[in-house]
Amino acid sequence: MQAYHDSSDLFCTRRPDGLELKLEAEGVEQAFVRTAPDGEEVMLPMGSDLTAVLPLSAPRLGYRFYLKTAEGAFWLSAAGLTRHTPTDATDFRYLSRFESPAWLEDAVFYQVFPDRFYDGESASNVQDGEYLCSGKPVIARAWHELPQAKTGWHEFFGGDLPGLEQKLDYLQELGCNAIYLNPIFTAPSSHKYDVADYREVDPHLGGDRAFASLMQAVHRQGMRLILDVVPNHCGETHPWFVQALQDKNAPTAEFFSFLRHPHEYECWLGVKSLPKLNYRSALLREEMISILRHWLRPPYRLDGWRLDVANMLARQGESQLGHKIGRALRRAVKAENPEAYLLGEHFFDGTPHLQGEELDASMNYRGFTMPVLHWLSGGDLAFHQKAPHGEGRALPTAALVAQWMAFLSAIPWQVACLQFNQLGSHDMPRIRFLLGEDLDRVQAAMVLLFAFPGVPCVYYGDEVGMSGGRDPHNRAPMVWQTERWCQATRELVKRLCGLRRSSSALRRGGFRVLHEGADRVVLERRSRDERLVVDVRRGSAEAVELPGLSLVGLLGGERLSGRLPAVSRAGGEIYCA
Amino acid sequence: MQAYHDSSDLFCTRRPDGLELKLEAEGVEQAFVRTAPDGEEVMLPMGSDLTAVLPLSAPRLGYRFYLKTAEGAFWLSAAGLTRHTPTDATDFRYLSRFESPAWLEDAVFYQVFPDRFYDGESASNVQDGEYLCSGKPVIARAWHELPQAKTGWHEFFGGDLPGLEQKLDYLQELGCNAIYLNPIFTAPSSHKYDVADYREVDPHLGGDRAFASLMQAVHRQGMRLILDVVPNHCGETHPWFVQALQDKNAPTAEFFSFLRHPHEYECWLGVKSLPKLNYRSALLREEMISILRHWLRPPYRLDGWRLDVANMLARQGESQLGHKIGRALRRAVKAENPEAYLLGEHFFDGTPHLQGEELDASMNYRGFTMPVLHWLSGGDLAFHQKAPHGEGRALPTAALVAQWMAFLSAIPWQVACLQFNQLGSHDMPRIRFLLGEDLDRVQAAMVLLFAFPGVPCVYYGDEVGMSGGRDPHNRAPMVWQTERWCQATRELVKRLCGLRRSSSALRRGGFRVLHEGADRVVLERRSRDERLVVDVRRGSAEAVELPGLSLVGLLGGERLSGRLPAVSRAGGEIYCA
Repeated sequence: MQAYHDSSDLFCTRRPDGLELKLEAEGVEQAFVRTAPDGEEVMLPMGSDLTAVLPLSAPRLGYRFYLKTAEGAFWLSAAGLTRHTPTDATDFRYLSRFESPAWLEDAVFYQVFPDRFYDGESASNVQDGEYLCSGKPVIARAWHELPQAKTGWHEFFGGDLPGLEQKLDYLQELGCNAIYLNPIFTAPSSHKYDVADYREVDPHLGGDRAFASLMQAVHRQGMRLILDVVPNHCGETHPWFVQALQDKNAPTAEFFSFLRHPHEYECWLGVKSLPKLNYRSALLREEMISILRHWLRPPYRLDGWRLDVANMLARQGESQLGHKIGRALRRAVKAENPEAYLLGEHFFDGTPHLQGEELDASMNYRGFTMPVLHWLSGGDLAFHQKAPHGEGRALPTAALVAQWMAFLSAIPWQVACLQFNQLGSHDMPRIRFLLGEDLDRVQAAMVLLFAFPGVPCVYYGDEVGMSGGRDPHNRAPMVWQTERWCQATRELVKRLCGLRRSSSALRRGGFRVLHEGADRVVLERRSRDERLVVDVRRGSAEAVELPGLSLVGLLGGERLSGRLPAVSRAGGEIYCA
Repeated sequence: MQAYHDSSDLFCTRRPDGLELKLEAEGVEQAFVRTAPDGEEVMLPMGSDLTAVLPLSAPRLGYRFYLKTAEGAFWLSAAGLTRHTPTDATDFRYLSRFESPAWLEDAVFYQVFPDRFYDGESASNVQDGEYLCSGKPVIARAWHELPQAKTGWHEFFGGDLPGLEQKLDYLQELGCNAIYLNPIFTAPSSHKYDVADYREVDPHLGGDRAFASLMQAVHRQGMRLILDVVPNHCGETHPWFVQALQDKNAPTAEFFSFLRHPHEYECWLGVKSLPKLNYRSALLREEMISILRHWLRPPYRLDGWRLDVANMLARQGESQLGHKIGRALRRAVKAENPEAYLLGEHFFDGTPHLQGEELDASMNYRGFTMPVLHWLSGGDLAFHQKAPHGEGRALPTAALVAQWMAFLSAIPWQVACLQFNQLGSHDMPRIRFLLGEDLDRVQAAMVLLFAFPGVPCVYYGDEVGMSGGRDPHNRAPMVWQTERWCQATRELVKRLCGLRRSSSALRRGGFRVLHEGADRVVLERRSRDERLVVDVRRGSAEAVELPGLSLVGLLGGERLSGRLPAVSRAGGEIYCA
């Protein structure tokens, strides 16, 4: 007996009377869709064509299949086939009333760290020693220099918003049509996570005017842009905190959690310069919501938010308001612009926030980046960061697949298609560095990035082969001398961007693992009109039989018939089947 | 590499500084406890004794173990060992602030269907034709008669509360010290799920006075009693509904959901005589809370509630208030009496309501009753009820264990110890009937009932070997002629009741599967001072080696050393190891 279903368009069709579910199965005598919209089990018999219509009576629906076979009855849930009755936690999930921003289907993101991308207006640059940042004089550096380990956060290279605006053509040519921009609000450091004013773009980056101009240019080119905002904490120089420190009866004192005023207060991971915001305060909630709405309006018309440390937001010991605040922020953002993208940073398991009521997506570190890295690099991130719990052994392919599936099956497919996948960010060593400068494995990683369900994001410079370890080495100024570019990587990324934007299978198609080899994983992405086979290896690998399939390589690979041949090195290819 | 942990007292010790966690493992080089109390991962290194202290900073904590071994790093979560990072959904769970009613640790329940247990006061009996019940004259039957398929709900046998009071000694002698009583509030039918007055005990059962007297007698004997209440719907004769029907502007009209007044309204599973209550009404919420509190007060001092169809409560299509109302009811009940037991009927997956904020327990149909029945009877309940999705094949032992573990691991262990396990109820054919009158398999089932984590409940008459198919045949008058009793079953139940009440391992001990054979499952229950081995077979079975263990049978079995011998028939035994 064999059975397969996923919640992609290939198997789910929205109809006036509900959601038509289709099952692919062999050896099934009788099949039912099982659901429980109001808590009571309903068994919908499937026709001989293995379809049934699920009425969409509730906003969130779970369903699974019950299959009678000669070997007994089986359940097919998002966790796979089981003989026993699973809990509802592994049901396929469908959100009847969920509206996802349509532009994301076509989006390929490019992440920009503003100070390090391009210096468009040198007049606004931070001057050497211009001010103190956490007690240290700021340092102005030249573009060709490299950030230094101990001063990275108060070094400035002069990148700014006019610079980004000037380079939109570069992004267009690469094939990226959306930008995720690290924080730009006024703040002393170069990373700007220590916000001093949520309502002003830092003048050193060009100020509000440059941002309005950038947004207009972005939209003129049919592109989108989302901003990084830090709702979890602010910087010690923010007037809210300054006033609260000075006067424990200040109106903004309730924005913080003082254990003993003024010296002891909650802060982010113990960093005293980043006091944690206290969402028990109704005033703070209103203020933060007003800020999020402000930038979604003209003249900016921001296309969405990336919420910094969304995992910790509004969570402090006894007070666990994460979900409540998550819902409130969504309501506010979507009320302002239903097409806004709401993305949350989550280094761990963000799936509880990804059920259609809070975030549209999380930065998919745990469901994509980490297992891919662990499989390809021979070590996990903690290992590369020399943490005591780091592990220097590669993940077996079965574990890679298991982790993908665990995180994919914990969220509705509609949300999985919005998930923000990345191979690198300002918070990780660059992928090329992590893969030991091995361009074959970089290629494998890039293919996975564009082939995995969700929205891909390229970290600035990765496309031209920039390398570099952890912060600040991963935040070096963008290399603009074309002679220093790795053309092979750039060509690959360009092809992948083009493929992603033209392929319905990559954008919305179902995701299925066809083969798990020791060092090779073969995937299928399939839509109604397209079937792609994705072949990724981390080293030499045995041949894989794919009987009956004729394959045309889309990244320069050859035509194949019925099998993927053995290979002697890492790499990746996408075939049209 | 081997590793084991469960959240029982054997591995978890509450200390002033947190929860000390212990791990049993071999081949582990380094171990960490992983938790994320405020959403951020924390890795606590375990000492060489494989212990670590988890700070109890948040009300609900998840934790799992990270184990570095020569074969790579593994995660140990409630779902077992995995090489990949699991989602937090499979974490071990701990509720830092949860207070469970202490009396449940020692409780063995007995379920009584009031009209069918004992007629203590014939003067109050329903008279033949005394009134109409849903348009049909009620029928008075003699105790020796049997309920009839088509009239069961308007047949009356005269059982009442004085009768139950007179039989408390019987329960005491059996070893049961808690009673779950089916509905007793005034209602036309004999099952009384069609409530006409939530604030009055039906006079045919003895009225309020008899109930107060019963409660006093129960408490005098050191026993407890919980009542069945129907918060999901009321009966068509309830004044709330009568008034709402008559006048769409009546104050209680908002207690119901009229689609078209007065003819179309929401009701329970389409049964028009049971109109569904609408919890969007604040007035209804207050009223239901007031009712629940009323009976917890003197002179009754009820010990808890069993909420009928808790799975559907406050859930109606677009309006899904189940969790919100669940939390509100808990707050009200616990405010009145923190020792009250809050049990919900849930035929399906109740685990989302069992996270410490709503129910103390559910009727554990899906996590215990159904898989046991499916394993022992050779068919599932739907099969016995001739539903098209019924399956007439026994569950493999591995699937039995997988289902147990899926439902156990989805809730905190503190809640698992409160779960209400049963082999039968007024909603199921009797266990003896389901097991084809095979007393060997009935013994196997009874042993599992008392050996499984949670609180066991005996359905009235099962202990003396009553049989009977589905409603109303499962609700026949209790057999009081001792010559008709199955003495073997009664002796077994008495022994099991005694064992459960004297054994720390059965009450609180960890639960571990030692062996999964084709037709045999061997379990361990282990506390700090006691280790029990539970051997259950559904037929003939091969021997099982248990090296080093010397076993003393507690239910009449022999002394054994190092192995459970092969057996030729079904049965069950509990050994002290």
